[in-house]
Amino acid sequence: MKKILLLNGPNLALLGTREPEIYGRTTLADIVAQVTEAARGKGIEVDSFQSDVEGELVSAIGRARGAYDGIILNPAAYTHTSVALHDAIKASGVPTVEVHLSNVYAREGYRHESLTAGVCAGQICGFGPTGYILALEALSTRNA
Amino acid sequence: MKKILLLNGPNLALLGTREPEIYGRTTLADIVAQVTEAARGKGIEVDSFQSDVEGELVSAIGRARGAYDGIILNPAAYTHTSVALHDAIKASGVPTVEVHLSNVYAREGYRHESLTAGVCAGQICGFGPTGYILALEALSTRNA
Amino acid sequence: MKKILLLNGPNLALLGTREPEIYGRTTLADIVAQVTEAARGKGIEVDSFQSDVEGELVSAIGRARGAYDGIILNPAAYTHTSVALHDAIKASGVPTVEVHLSNVYAREGYRHESLTAGVCAGQICGFGPTGYILALEALSTRNA
Amino acid sequence: MKKILLLNGPNLALLGTREPEIYGRTTLADIVAQVTEAARGKGIEVDSFQSDVEGELVSAIGRARGAYDGIILNPAAYTHTSVALHDAIKASGVPTVEVHLSNVYAREGYRHESLTAGVCAGQICGFGPTGYILALEALSTRNA
Amino acid sequence: MKKILLLNGPNLALLGTREPEIYGRTTLADIVAQVTEAARGKGIEVDSFQSDVEGELVSAIGRARGAYDGIILNPAAYTHTSVALHDAIKASGVPTVEVHLSNVYAREGYRHESLTAGVCAGQICGFGPTGYILALEALSTRNA
Amino acid sequence: MKKILLLNGPNLALLGTREPEIYGRTTLADIVAQVTEAARGKGIEVDSFQSDVEGELVSAIGRARGAYDGIILNPAAYTHTSVALHDAIKASGVPTVEVHLSNVYAREGYRHESLTAGVCAGQICGFGPTGYILALEALSTRNA
Amino acid sequence: MKKILLLNGPNLALLGTREPEIYGRTTLADIVAQVTEAARGKGIEVDSFQSDVEGELVSAIGRARGAYDGIILNPAAYTHTSVALHDAIKASGVPTVEVHLSNVYAREGYRHESLTAGVCAGQICGFGPTGYILALEALSTRNA
Amino acid sequence: MKKILLLNGPNLALLGTREPEIYGRTTLADIVAQVTEAARGKGIEVDSFQSDVEGELVSAIGRARGAYDGIILNPAAYTHTSVALHDAIKASGVPTVEVHLSNVYAREGYRHESLTAGVCAGQICGFGPTGYILALEALSTRNA
Amino acid sequence: MKKILLLNGPNLALLGTREPEIYGRTTLADIVAQVTEAARGKGIEVDSFQSDVEGELVSAIGRARGAYDGIILNPAAYTHTSVALHDAIKASGVPTVEVHLSNVYAREGYRHESLTAGVCAGQICGFGPTGYILALEALSTRNA
Amino acid sequence: MKKILLLNGPNLALLGTREPEIYGRTTLADIVAQVTEAARGKGIEVDSFQSDVEGELVSAIGRARGAYDGIILNPAAYTHTSVALHDAIKASGVPTVEVHLSNVYAREGYRHESLTAGVCAGQICGFGPTGYILALEALSTRNA
Amino acid sequence: MKKILLLNGPNLALLGTREPEIYGRTTLADIVAQVTEAARGKGIEVDSFQSDVEGELVSAIGRARGAYDGIILNPAAYTHTSVALHDAIKASGVPTVEVHLSNVYAREGYRHESLTAGVCAGQICGFGPTGYILALEALSTRNA
Amino acid sequence: MKKILLLNGPNLALLGTREPEIYGRTTLADIVAQVTEAARGKGIEVDSFQSDVEGELVSAIGRARGAYDGIILNPAAYTHTSVALHDAIKASGVPTVEVHLSNVYAREGYRHESLTAGVCAGQICGFGPTGYILALEALSTRNA
Repeated sequence: MKKILLLNGPNLALLGTREPEIYGRTTLADIVAQVTEAARGKGIEVDSFQSDVEGELVSAIGRARGAYDGIILNPAAYTHTSVALHDAIKASGVPTVEVHLSNVYAREGYRHESLTAGVCAGQICGFGPTGYILALEALSTRNA
Repeated sequence: MKKILLLNGPNLALLGTREPEIYGRTTLADIVAQVTEAARGKGIEVDSFQSDVEGELVSAIGRARGAYDGIILNPAAYTHTSVALHDAIKASGVPTVEVHLSNVYAREGYRHESLTAGVCAGQICGFGPTGYILALEALSTRNA
Repeated sequence: MKKILLLNGPNLALLGTREPEIYGRTTLADIVAQVTEAARGKGIEVDSFQSDVEGELVSAIGRARGAYDGIILNPAAYTHTSVALHDAIKASGVPTVEVHLSNVYAREGYRHESLTAGVCAGQICGFGPTGYILALEALSTRNA
Repeated sequence: MKKILLLNGPNLALLGTREPEIYGRTTLADIVAQVTEAARGKGIEVDSFQSDVEGELVSAIGRARGAYDGIILNPAAYTHTSVALHDAIKASGVPTVEVHLSNVYAREGYRHESLTAGVCAGQICGFGPTGYILALEALSTRNA
Repeated sequence: MKKILLLNGPNLALLGTREPEIYGRTTLADIVAQVTEAARGKGIEVDSFQSDVEGELVSAIGRARGAYDGIILNPAAYTHTSVALHDAIKASGVPTVEVHLSNVYAREGYRHESLTAGVCAGQICGFGPTGYILALEALSTRNA
Repeated sequence: MKKILLLNGPNLALLGTREPEIYGRTTLADIVAQVTEAARGKGIEVDSFQSDVEGELVSAIGRARGAYDGIILNPAAYTHTSVALHDAIKASGVPTVEVHLSNVYAREGYRHESLTAGVCAGQICGFGPTGYILALEALSTRNA
Repeated sequence: MKKILLLNGPNLALLGTREPEIYGRTTLADIVAQVTEAARGKGIEVDSFQSDVEGELVSAIGRARGAYDGIILNPAAYTHTSVALHDAIKASGVPTVEVHLSNVYAREGYRHESLTAGVCAGQICGFGPTGYILALEALSTRNA
Repeated sequence: MKKILLLNGPNLALLGTREPEIYGRTTLADIVAQVTEAARGKGIEVDSFQSDVEGELVSAIGRARGAYDGIILNPAAYTHTSVALHDAIKASGVPTVEVHLSNVYAREGYRHESLTAGVCAGQICGFGPTGYILALEALSTRNA
Repeated sequence: MKKILLLNGPNLALLGTREPEIYGRTTLADIVAQVTEAARGKGIEVDSFQSDVEGELVSAIGRARGAYDGIILNPAAYTHTSVALHDAIKASGVPTVEVHLSNVYAREGYRHESLTAGVCAGQICGFGPTGYILALEALSTRNA
Repeated sequence: MKKILLLNGPNLALLGTREPEIYGRTTLADIVAQVTEAARGKGIEVDSFQSDVEGELVSAIGRARGAYDGIILNPAAYTHTSVALHDAIKASGVPTVEVHLSNVYAREGYRHESLTAGVCAGQICGFGPTGYILALEALSTRNA
Repeated sequence: MKKILLLNGPNLALLGTREPEIYGRTTLADIVAQVTEAARGKGIEVDSFQSDVEGELVSAIGRARGAYDGIILNPAAYTHTSVALHDAIKASGVPTVEVHLSNVYAREGYRHESLTAGVCAGQICGFGPTGYILALEALSTRNA
Repeated sequence: MKKILLLNGPNLALLGTREPEIYGRTTLADIVAQVTEAARGKGIEVDSFQSDVEGELVSAIGRARGAYDGIILNPAAYTHTSVALHDAIKASGVPTVEVHLSNVYAREGYRHESLTAGVCAGQICGFGPTGYILALEALSTRNA
């Protein structure tokens, strides 16, 4: 495992300012920095991309094939509505871990189902920014 | 209330040419002009943005925080499918009024539910372009 | 447009005393007075009727045919359960605007569907007493 | 069989003026007259009552016990929503025939289910005013 | 109205022997005789056909076009499962009255829906063999 | 606790004559007498009202605010269909106990859900007239 | 018990050639021979009938009344769609055992429900051709 | 009525410490003492059993046959999931009253349905520990 | 590819006379002639069979095994109700193309699901008689 | 096949005393004796275990791996609610036959689905105690 | 017919590399070349556009009005989730044929419904790249 | 954080022998050892308990209050059926992390919903035994 892609979906650029009682005060930049540092300790390089546009996330995953050894993906709202992301992850063949900052099971019923998790290696939710670090751990353990 | 954002979703750029028996012959430019003029009478500035891309509407709402005192939003088809817009409106904290040109209750069943209205201040539907003027009235009354 | 009927459904006689965090402190008499005054400015006469009885609302709408040019209707709880009101509005042929004080989309799921709105001209919800004034505006613009 | 009650529900007072393409131009008075005349030929007396109020129909059925040998009932919109009418018919024990002017199966899906028909002797729909005459025939044949 | 087709579906050949507490003791031959006699009084000729095979009923309805002025149809169990009969009735264009011996609303829930009634002129249920006579009355009144 | 309202809904005036195998032979007058006597022993005054009309029950609950310390309510059939009663109980703020004579869970599925119980203090069902006495006990214990 | 009817439904004539990984290589003729031989040992005569036509199976069951002491029925695909077979079995009054070669619970969800089993004496599934022998055993034990 | 069984289900051993805003501060021992004392006044003996294990509750109800004249049962969470308890109550034939401390209708939707109440004599919910005393009253009145 | 079977289901014998606004004026004989001619140009022989009886279509598909290289199937109404046809196509192993004259997605909701298409090679709908020619093209390309 | 486990679930210890109109008067001991005797004739040893506790049944199935050649399982009420038993049967890998005394298809709808049958070899229901003997026959035939 | 637009949705840029067992090894460029060549033979010009972004597909269809005589559209994953594409096709008025490479009916249930096909001329699925050629044929036949 | 409870549900005692293609070959003892060792490095003590009995898991969680600083819980099959575990976790107030060895989203639909996760701190699934180590990490980070 040499290189992973850290991919964040809609509204996550607002992290740290948005509904702090649910998502906390850490910004997306903070998370990218933490994951990058943790990865460096494992000799893994991290690229990061955030987009509010479903199709741009789809494209990023499509391009990941051959370029990355793993993806850490927080699809945010698209988790529950995007067949296109499901298809992209399945097609890319790159091992992907789905992360959610909040505990999706403690929120509205429609957030309990994930269209994307079934084609990922696994899912981690409810641990805030720590979830990304756990996902990194899960990915690197898997490919050790 | 100094400044509001007039935000229109997918297919609304075609307004005036598209299914006139449902949507009438007024163009989007006409609507923007009417809202702008009505707002000027109340000392309110109006910016307008239209996009067919869900994620661009999400981004626009995200950027509205701190920049606008209110949003008039016609999410069109995304009303019924977009959890991402729901999250964006909730996160932005900017008072938003949802507008629909047609009476959504007189159309297909799946248009009766709105994923976005619950996080808006209110919803107005069925009055064609007049709905935008009523929304402006509602927003300005609210913040008077 | 010479004359409109302002029709209010169950529990609305309690307005101003009932669950003020949802419905505010304005009484039904206040609303009737505000709508009447606003209508007078447009040369429109207003009759007002409130009943807790579904069938009396049905009868009132039935009698409105030929007697009124428009109806402003807040069916309250009957919005979600009354096929009889649906049939009455459709049969009367009088242009009707449905108004809700609260944002029905921000409440229980069963309040998201309206059995009556589909046969109205349109619906306005979430703006408190202001909604009635907007409805008057919508009706008078429509028949201008 | 000496005496029957002809009971009509909400909006039926408007018959003959309301949506004639569905319900025709015969008035409720015409129907009462036709049924009364047809019944007289069989030596049966007819009382008629119409109300828009669900509870008044419930009360009328409750009072029918012992007073009438049969009921011809058009519950109109309450057919699809009234558990109270179901309970009233069951409790009264008076043989009841449900009549609908229009073919309820050719209309909205929610009009296909009847909460009341299951406790009636039978149901007749789709034949306009003739349906009431057929119901009289059915009741009198049954009790012959 | 010169000629009608009396069409009976699956299991109706057993009538009079089968579950008499629901269907009574009259045989299908009795019913055909009663309808034929009643029709003769109105100058109407009756042809009768019974089949347990859905497709043979479909064919009979298809052949009825131009040959009959009306159909009295008891689709029995196929009422609730046959899209093919729905299509046949719609395609034939011959006015059809649906009859059920028992009150379908007083039986299992799946017998409350009819796939065929919506393309018939109307439906009569719950009156046993009398229902066929009422259907004849309904058809002949209609075409009088 | 000085004064309570005993409120009975549709078809309950027939009590004692109607379906005795489910509801027994005690009349509504018997029940009112029993509750009144039991209440007198606790120094509580009882007013009683029965109506078949949903809206009159709604009005009675609306008027109870400030006039009664508690309500014993048997909404009968409206339990399962009335959002208006739900809203009335919630708005009145008067502690209410829901009573059913029969065990609603042993009857049709649609009688298992209550639209009103969630805004009451509690529910008691299945004990016949005794249920009203238990409700009185529950109310007076609560306010002791 | 003197005589039983072995009744097989659609596609079972193909047995032994069709999807052998699910249904095995035994032909329908093999099964008829095995059941006949096993029955002979019990002094029971066996008649066998196979049809792809739902209505012919319905007719066969209708004719079984009085002619057979029991039916072994594999309704195949019609198990899940045929109200007509349900009605036929109920009407015939002949004790019937439903057999399926495959374990219907291990296949598509719509094969888990049987419209016919509820009016049979019982059901046996998942044991291939052996299931017919077990059904014979069950029938003969029952009538011993 | 000589002897009753007081049966409490999962998590009720924690009573008084667990979520006091819903369940209050009374412990299970307090409740057993109160019920025992109230019963003694009526000459009734009380045995009490609590278990977190569904099957142990099932066994206790099975053993109650012949040993107790009534059961007061709080099935707690198993109310909504246990067909086994339903079967046990039905099989035991011992009159059972279902009690819930909280108002189940004011909580999550899945707590509105009870798999067990339909085979009990009745249900009491929402009155905290008082509910057990009311249940005792209901049982003893019933068997008086 | 030497020989194909052209198989048409219920009501298609009426083609050209039935609901021409949906199905056009071409008869089934016209279609058979067009497909036969187009096939001849590819050196393919065509046999044609139409039946209104589900079971006869099932039998025809069963007999097709080994006799035909492909099937062009318009199951008409049975598309949406026939598990038996699903099983027949799966069992036959003959490559089958499902054709519909009308666009099933533009009609009633229950016509959107196909029980048969999932075991066919593919489906073509909405192009009228041309659909059969496209199906022939698809089959012959596939086996080229 | 040397040794099988006869496993019975909740409430079956009451067999012979409980609802005899559904389950008959044979006790569980009678059934164990009958199965043991029938097995002895085939040179098969039988161990029997009954528990009301879901988890004890799960444990028994877990321990069966390697110890038994087959399981005859009547999961009773847990059939319809236990994912844990499903998982246990699948994990154990021991061929299992599911037996029900009553015809589950003739009872409440929720008893028509089995969470366990899909991972068993097959299911037998409706034949009372005979079902266990048939299951033994099925298991021994299978492993012959 | 002079000019058509070939429009491909999300993940189709990966064609030929992605899940070849479902989609084959032909690339999108291959398909565009094949369609272009086939079109040239009919004197039709082809423009091609692919995007992973729903809104860009919406915009492309909006711009097609007046610029193209037909659209061949493979909406891929958006088929099942996009009301916006439905609205765009309906608004554009350009005859559109929906194509899917795989047989959507042989895949997950949620791929059986199409939000877009109902406003297209028709749909073709299951024939791989050949489907596009058949769509061209369908479009050109239609406009011949 | 001094002490945590490692709690494993039904069938997990079989780990390492059961369906290794889903769950791998690591035994439960291996997992306990790994978690204990990892915890020791953080100065945390680990107690471990496994039970197949839902109620014993409920009791263990109830006893954890005050005794443990965190729980790592794999409820296995009870995840999807146990309201009792939901109530226990909520009542105990001990921070709990839900772990699943397999990716529940890649399995049967009924495994996608968790009745317990909503009252846990978070959920981790799909990473095999590593998931427990990640859960320990999550718990200790949280309480650091």
